Amino acid sequence: MTRTIVASATKEIAIGFDQPFCVIGERINPTGRKKLAAEMAAGNFETVIKDALEQVAAGATMLDVNAGVTAVNPNETEPPLLVETLQIVQGLVDVPLSIDSSVSAAIEAALKVAKGRPLVNSVTGEDEKLEAILPLVKKYDVPVVAISNDETGISEDPDVRFEVARKIVQRAADYGIPAHDIVVDPLVMPIGAMATAGQQVFRLLRRLREELKVNTTCGLSNISFGLPHRHGINAAFIPMVIASGMTSAIMNPCRPQEMEMVRAANVLTGNDANCYNWIMTYRDHSPVAGVSAVPAADSAGARRRGGREGRRRASA
Amino acid sequence: MTRTIVASATKEIAIGFDQPFCVIGERINPTGRKKLAAEMAAGNFETVIKDALEQVAAGATMLDVNAGVTAVNPNETEPPLLVETLQIVQGLVDVPLSIDSSVSAAIEAALKVAKGRPLVNSVTGEDEKLEAILPLVKKYDVPVVAISNDETGISEDPDVRFEVARKIVQRAADYGIPAHDIVVDPLVMPIGAMATAGQQVFRLLRRLREELKVNTTCGLSNISFGLPHRHGINAAFIPMVIASGMTSAIMNPCRPQEMEMVRAANVLTGNDANCYNWIMTYRDHSPVAGVSAVPAADSAGARRRGGREGRRRASA
Repeated sequence: MTRTIVASATKEIAIGFDQPFCVIGERINPTGRKKLAAEMAAGNFETVIKDALEQVAAGATMLDVNAGVTAVNPNETEPPLLVETLQIVQGLVDVPLSIDSSVSAAIEAALKVAKGRPLVNSVTGEDEKLEAILPLVKKYDVPVVAISNDETGISEDPDVRFEVARKIVQRAADYGIPAHDIVVDPLVMPIGAMATAGQQVFRLLRRLREELKVNTTCGLSNISFGLPHRHGINAAFIPMVIASGMTSAIMNPCRPQEMEMVRAANVLTGNDANCYNWIMTYRDHSPVAGVSAVPAADSAGARRRGGREGRRRASA
Repeated sequence: MTRTIVASATKEIAIGFDQPFCVIGERINPTGRKKLAAEMAAGNFETVIKDALEQVAAGATMLDVNAGVTAVNPNETEPPLLVETLQIVQGLVDVPLSIDSSVSAAIEAALKVAKGRPLVNSVTGEDEKLEAILPLVKKYDVPVVAISNDETGISEDPDVRFEVARKIVQRAADYGIPAHDIVVDPLVMPIGAMATAGQQVFRLLRRLREELKVNTTCGLSNISFGLPHRHGINAAFIPMVIASGMTSAIMNPCRPQEMEMVRAANVLTGNDANCYNWIMTYRDHSPVAGVSAVPAADSAGARRRGGREGRRRASA
């Protein structure tokens, strides 16, 4: 059974097919957040601290940490800022971290100070990237996110993306990195722009699980980009990717609708033993008033369903 | 491509892998609803009428109609009551109907008066049932729900349930009934009582789709029987069964959380062309106040995700 082990200073977590879905909190990332970028560049980590605490309180399994505040001379500015951000976060919360940077020097600087066993985010199938990142992954004995695109871009053919993933796994093996330390990101396209984006990912996830036997992750909310009520699309996408074999996602754990679907999917895959986490979380749950179109009919509906179950089970 | 055609007097619907998920409204069913049973037995159809209108308004694709008000002498009492109920419903709404009875004489009586092309619910793998129902299905040229249990009961082994389904499809072929007129119910057990119930169904659905190439359905809410906040479990189960290949379900369309997941899953399987239905339904949607744990952070989150997407697409 494939298991990717990540750890904080004191806490070890396994990502795997027989484990609860791994929620990697996405919020500590200044990309596209001008205010946060300005704060971090000025050495103000108030939002970082708030985002770290809130995400863990909301149920994040891990936290992604990104310090890409500027495209100007990142090779010099990003390493010290990523190190400082990482140290603040790992001093504050006790979940494993994901070191997220497109700057190899920043990844190595962070790996030097990281406690436990962080995840490196990320490598692609581009030769230059593979040659920069895989030696670090080997040297520090850490797992890595492998994004299934290469020099030719992102293919719309899931079978081509599968081959890119296979190439990364093989190249990693050349460095002595086992497949269970590769977490493949199949790349999620916006469904509003490409109607086949969902089916592509479902197919790719099944092949990644059954043939390459690797763990998987994705930037989950990409799927709903440009659509109204994005949280509804994200919420349905979570159980669908989990049913297709996905074992983690980089997402916002502070969204209750999405986290409810993660918890329910853990029950439905049999990875919430005795439904304990579900029952503890929702035992006092009462539906929000006005959410049901026909609230008066509900208790009758529940009785009727009980009856149906009774009838069908009786025939067993 | 497998297509099961059902029809009302004027409206034809296809159930299929490339079609929006078929929601079969479950509410017109007195099983376990004492008040409704008493009303129907007394010739009072007020609740039937209300349930028919509400379910269609809520988005049901079809309606299930069951008139099993009593276990006392049903062979004589159920046929005229089912006929009367069916005629009231088909005079009121213009969606295809499912004729739901365990009494063969009631099914035949209803088939005689049904308009369009109803679905028969149901036959099992029991020889006696097959010999009673399949000739009716052939005579009236209608599709039928095939429940994957037989004389030995409901197996916990999905491969045994698959073989029961295969037997029904083969027996139907002997009568000249094509596989595309068999809608298999893989049987959903309560996840609270059997932790493997979800994985069983996902596996069975994939085999039914890939090997038998048949449409499928289930009594959806059985999955959450006995658990708190059942609608959350049901809501996650819907995208998971759809991702596994299920094409219809007998469920309560009056539950907004479940219907939202059906609509989102239609987008994600590419069966909501141009996301039209989603956009029309949710374009003015605003999150319910207080539902988000950290509402203040949301707009920043949206910006940040936009940024991530920009970054990843830029590398393509």
